[in-house]
Amino acid sequence: MTRVAVLGAKGRMGSTSAAAIEAADGLELVAGIDVGDELEAIAEAQAEAVLVFTTPDVAFDQARWCLERGIHVVIGTSGFGDEKVAQLREIVSGHEGVGALVVPNFSIGAVLMMRFAAVAAPFFESVEVIEMHHPDKVDAPSGTAVRTAELIAEARREAGSAALPDATTTDPDGARGAKVEGIPVHALRARGFIASQEVVLGDPGEIFSIRHDSSSRESFMPGVVAALQWIPEHPGVTVGLDEVLELD
Amino acid sequence: MTRVAVLGAKGRMGSTSAAAIEAADGLELVAGIDVGDELEAIAEAQAEAVLVFTTPDVAFDQARWCLERGIHVVIGTSGFGDEKVAQLREIVSGHEGVGALVVPNFSIGAVLMMRFAAVAAPFFESVEVIEMHHPDKVDAPSGTAVRTAELIAEARREAGSAALPDATTTDPDGARGAKVEGIPVHALRARGFIASQEVVLGDPGEIFSIRHDSSSRESFMPGVVAALQWIPEHPGVTVGLDEVLELD
Amino acid sequence: MTRVAVLGAKGRMGSTSAAAIEAADGLELVAGIDVGDELEAIAEAQAEAVLVFTTPDVAFDQARWCLERGIHVVIGTSGFGDEKVAQLREIVSGHEGVGALVVPNFSIGAVLMMRFAAVAAPFFESVEVIEMHHPDKVDAPSGTAVRTAELIAEARREAGSAALPDATTTDPDGARGAKVEGIPVHALRARGFIASQEVVLGDPGEIFSIRHDSSSRESFMPGVVAALQWIPEHPGVTVGLDEVLELD
Amino acid sequence: MTRVAVLGAKGRMGSTSAAAIEAADGLELVAGIDVGDELEAIAEAQAEAVLVFTTPDVAFDQARWCLERGIHVVIGTSGFGDEKVAQLREIVSGHEGVGALVVPNFSIGAVLMMRFAAVAAPFFESVEVIEMHHPDKVDAPSGTAVRTAELIAEARREAGSAALPDATTTDPDGARGAKVEGIPVHALRARGFIASQEVVLGDPGEIFSIRHDSSSRESFMPGVVAALQWIPEHPGVTVGLDEVLELD
Repeated sequence: MTRVAVLGAKGRMGSTSAAAIEAADGLELVAGIDVGDELEAIAEAQAEAVLVFTTPDVAFDQARWCLERGIHVVIGTSGFGDEKVAQLREIVSGHEGVGALVVPNFSIGAVLMMRFAAVAAPFFESVEVIEMHHPDKVDAPSGTAVRTAELIAEARREAGSAALPDATTTDPDGARGAKVEGIPVHALRARGFIASQEVVLGDPGEIFSIRHDSSSRESFMPGVVAALQWIPEHPGVTVGLDEVLELD
Repeated sequence: MTRVAVLGAKGRMGSTSAAAIEAADGLELVAGIDVGDELEAIAEAQAEAVLVFTTPDVAFDQARWCLERGIHVVIGTSGFGDEKVAQLREIVSGHEGVGALVVPNFSIGAVLMMRFAAVAAPFFESVEVIEMHHPDKVDAPSGTAVRTAELIAEARREAGSAALPDATTTDPDGARGAKVEGIPVHALRARGFIASQEVVLGDPGEIFSIRHDSSSRESFMPGVVAALQWIPEHPGVTVGLDEVLELD
Repeated sequence: MTRVAVLGAKGRMGSTSAAAIEAADGLELVAGIDVGDELEAIAEAQAEAVLVFTTPDVAFDQARWCLERGIHVVIGTSGFGDEKVAQLREIVSGHEGVGALVVPNFSIGAVLMMRFAAVAAPFFESVEVIEMHHPDKVDAPSGTAVRTAELIAEARREAGSAALPDATTTDPDGARGAKVEGIPVHALRARGFIASQEVVLGDPGEIFSIRHDSSSRESFMPGVVAALQWIPEHPGVTVGLDEVLELD
Repeated sequence: MTRVAVLGAKGRMGSTSAAAIEAADGLELVAGIDVGDELEAIAEAQAEAVLVFTTPDVAFDQARWCLERGIHVVIGTSGFGDEKVAQLREIVSGHEGVGALVVPNFSIGAVLMMRFAAVAAPFFESVEVIEMHHPDKVDAPSGTAVRTAELIAEARREAGSAALPDATTTDPDGARGAKVEGIPVHALRARGFIASQEVVLGDPGEIFSIRHDSSSRESFMPGVVAALQWIPEHPGVTVGLDEVLELD
């Protein structure tokens, strides 16, 4: 049984996670901390792992506080780029046996989609990405779509794949969408979607597609639980769920 | 039994149609004419209806030739816009009982998709169009996608529908696609597609979609046959398959 | 402004509808009645239309009570078959100007799907229905899928369509699904679906599909609102949303 | 440059393959053999690898003939089960450096779909398989669907996954389809499909799907070419394209 505390327990992800942790095998929720609470409560509750969903301005220092006390962290706060990950590595290097797992996307479905898209991409002549979100989203394309296109482009470069065929010479209004490292990305914004994405691959006489439709925050919970179950046995700094899911 | 001649019999659509006519109820193929042949052969074969698939530069005069002899025409040649249709009306008005049917799209599936999209559009808050074609296509978006978006926009205007919700403020690379009369249109170009289109409509808590995938010229044949079976009983000038299919 | 009362106001559909009525143009919520409340409250609130979501055992008598007082009813309670509809006609015939609308399915998306499927069915050689629901559903196929198949079968009979082609001679485990009036119906039960359905139609070289995905009760609200806005101007007894949506 | 001969060169797969081999990097077509030709022509043409698409009754002996002469074989003939594979191993063990590759399915898309389905299956609560074929197919479900379900079931057993949730108690006509090792499999038969399959996986709040649509024999050619390019460097007996595609 791993004793787990949640940082940012009153936020949407934090509160949904608390319920999932309580229902999960091998995890025990021992503390829920939010703005105004003392971090000391984590130590008092003898938490062994902390799930961090606080805002970017405080999350790093809170993670450091935990790691320095030998408490594992799973970080769901966004914005942990290369620089912060390097700093985490430094902190962890001084505390044997402690683990930090940075998770840009807790959706196992999204992680599998990206992985499968990258594996499949070199086998097909064509590949495009379509992402569909609710119309209140302010940016296009989505971060997941960009990351997917980057992984596809990288896989094709490594495999020596040819450029995508495209004879388009007339497209006055931009129907062909955005290009992310050469991969076309299309963004739909329609009421009724929460977060969906489809990767479409094509060869002569065949179409292969991978699609993920997420309709609620619940869909992140299996990823949250898997991360917390995994971290106690995996010291060091890890980025992404791929290793947790043993996709590598 | 309607005696049918094909003009442009050696072209791709003409030759595929000849086989379909021979297999169809109530139609009899009596002549196949192509470049170098005399139109007189149509009269000699006592054709009652002529299917026109010749090039735009000759198709109009050939249609006139037929109509003036009391022979019905079904015109599949592209580029018969408002002006030419008006001219056809003039010709037909002088020849009682003769019919001309101009068909921009023989695909019953495409016609149904456009019709259903227009009917459904006012009932949903959001609507977008995705068209998928082979990567040798030079223009984007496709003519069918543009026509679909126009019909959707017209239906929403008539119903007094609100503008589509879209909070996008950041889209540096154009992932949101083209706007045709305010309706987003996205064009994919991938090997493996021939001609596909999907109309996606959304409301809170639901997505409604209409999709048509065409993988061969064969898919136009039911429309060709229906047009030829219909024209003998329908004098005057008609545009599109909607009336033939009794969708009006 | 139509003054609306909700019968069964504390149930799931009733409470969701109350919020939708308050937000809708031309409707004013004046009373919410549930078990234990007196119907008299409807009259006292001077309701002009009543939305009925009570249980089958009481809904008919409550509807009669309203109609006899000249109050329109929109009935969402299930189980209003031919017999009860006939009884409603009798009641209504004695009360000029009052209207009763019986709605087996408030989902505009589902109604459109059924309508489009029936219109399209005679134009294609093949047609099958796939419905997808959450795995807690106890019956298969769904009522909507059965109704869709019946409408498809009826449309094909009227059009004189041939039987569906199917060369299957070996299917030991029943992979071909159920047959409803000759139309194959397949039922998926998977976590992540609420209520989805797809109608797949095929001809040589083309596939046409109509799909509806519903992910929340919210998706019924546009149908509830449309029904309540429509009923004051439409005396007599009407069944289904088709006429409300002007699909006939 | 690998010198390739085709056995069964006049059959549909053989003749399509011949064209693909001629167009492929690193392969040279040196002989096309069919019924009535002498195998000796293979040796005379100095073929280094032979693609076998002959009928099951002769394919094994032909493969043995090649292997005993140090010529690699890629076997596309169906029906090479465990017993024949064991016999191939015996033959190959006596001829160092020679390779035999048995390929039940040359479609890279189908191979990827099966692989991805098996990888993803343990991460989701629900999973079902839908296969769609032309209506002239006599058996249901398809061999690929059965194999996919077996791989899914095996992956879930190994991962200790729970049984699929399914509350169905009423399904008088078999809408829930076939069960293959506990995995529901649904078979559609509609004009317009050649060979399609979709694997649908679900968790609370999300649906993940993998789909492959094949519309022509051409779609097998990348797999044929990859197999022929791979075999000269891989002695011994190998089954399936997984290793060729480096998916293992």
